[in-house]
Amino acid sequence: MRHFLEELDDLQELLLEMAGRVEFAIRRAISALVDRDEEQAQEVLRNEARINQMEIEIDDLAVRPAGPPSAMAKDLRFLTAAIKINNDLERMGDLAVNIVERALSLIHQPPIKPLVIFRRWARWSIPWCETAWTRSFKRDGQLARGVLLSDDAVDDLRDRVCEELVAFMEKDPSTISRALDLIMVARNLERVADHATNIAEDVLFLAQGIDVRHHSETGQ
Amino acid sequence: MRHFLEELDDLQELLLEMAGRVEFAIRRAISALVDRDEEQAQEVLRNEARINQMEIEIDDLAVRPAGPPSAMAKDLRFLTAAIKINNDLERMGDLAVNIVERALSLIHQPPIKPLVIFRRWARWSIPWCETAWTRSFKRDGQLARGVLLSDDAVDDLRDRVCEELVAFMEKDPSTISRALDLIMVARNLERVADHATNIAEDVLFLAQGIDVRHHSETGQ
Repeated sequence: MRHFLEELDDLQELLLEMAGRVEFAIRRAISALVDRDEEQAQEVLRNEARINQMEIEIDDLAVRPAGPPSAMAKDLRFLTAAIKINNDLERMGDLAVNIVERALSLIHQPPIKPLVIFRRWARWSIPWCETAWTRSFKRDGQLARGVLLSDDAVDDLRDRVCEELVAFMEKDPSTISRALDLIMVARNLERVADHATNIAEDVLFLAQGIDVRHHSETGQ
Repeated sequence: MRHFLEELDDLQELLLEMAGRVEFAIRRAISALVDRDEEQAQEVLRNEARINQMEIEIDDLAVRPAGPPSAMAKDLRFLTAAIKINNDLERMGDLAVNIVERALSLIHQPPIKPLVIFRRWARWSIPWCETAWTRSFKRDGQLARGVLLSDDAVDDLRDRVCEELVAFMEKDPSTISRALDLIMVARNLERVADHATNIAEDVLFLAQGIDVRHHSETGQ
């Protein structure tokens, strides 16, 4: 068995390699956009699977039992999950603030349309968030899996909201800046759902010891 | 000294309390928007400081030396940082893919304007990313602090891009959907910068043992 400190060196090296790949991806993405270059765009898409794979390798290395005493492996796994869930929750808090900033700006302007769809979104997505986290620590794998599935529904809802708002803008350009605020709210709500999905993935990992990240790719 | 397992229970309880606060914030944010209710908006803003505070408490509890043997505290801190940085890098990779998806859609439509500002953004922000991560593991606190400062500059750049694009849309509504794609690219680049800032914060924490998260609030 190799020494713990050597494993920390490996971890450091893997992180730097991943950082390099990510930087490459961002550079290429901007070039693809600015130079209208489809080849560079495809390169970014091809590169993505390796980045996702590396993420899993790095986390595995960070919590592998070979490092710290292996009796602690399960607790370390819980600590890892706690650190990540904490991070996701804090970002969700930031997103609520972003939404409120848009709301405060919109309150002082005439409404462009009744916001029925957002209310429906709230009614539908909030109990679903509750499911994600209040059950989290009961390690209920089934419920967490439900959250993973409904993430796609949130994406559909966002697309509908955005299409509707774009139609508004095109019909009456005076609504553009207000419609844009609402589109940003929709994006923020979508990101709330993404974080809830991350939490669900961590819970599933704890409950069943399986890694469901990047499930769509590996499921193929 | 209390038992490690009791501390895990405390951690679980704090996480659930934080989850409750975040959920409350998101509910209130949507109500503020839909009901045009400034009081609820202010409530979210007041609630944010406590969420930020809890994030720090939870991370402290997760890596405190009282739990696992204290000789390992420093290594655990490195492991925690590695897990978070890994997570930030993976998200940055996703953002590159988001940018590419917009780019692929735009490549097949007539350009609405030369994308000079994005190229400038790339030229200026990429070396800055390099700074953030290649120096990361040399624990160079000074450089990480530079990243924290330039985050505001990215926000300014994004505002300029968005204002310019909104002006385009208002002048010629036929550009709306393409301009919207570019605004989303700007948002994605801004999030790249946010993740680079997160990494810088973790590096500073490692280098100097200080917590610079929510520095603007605590600096008041």
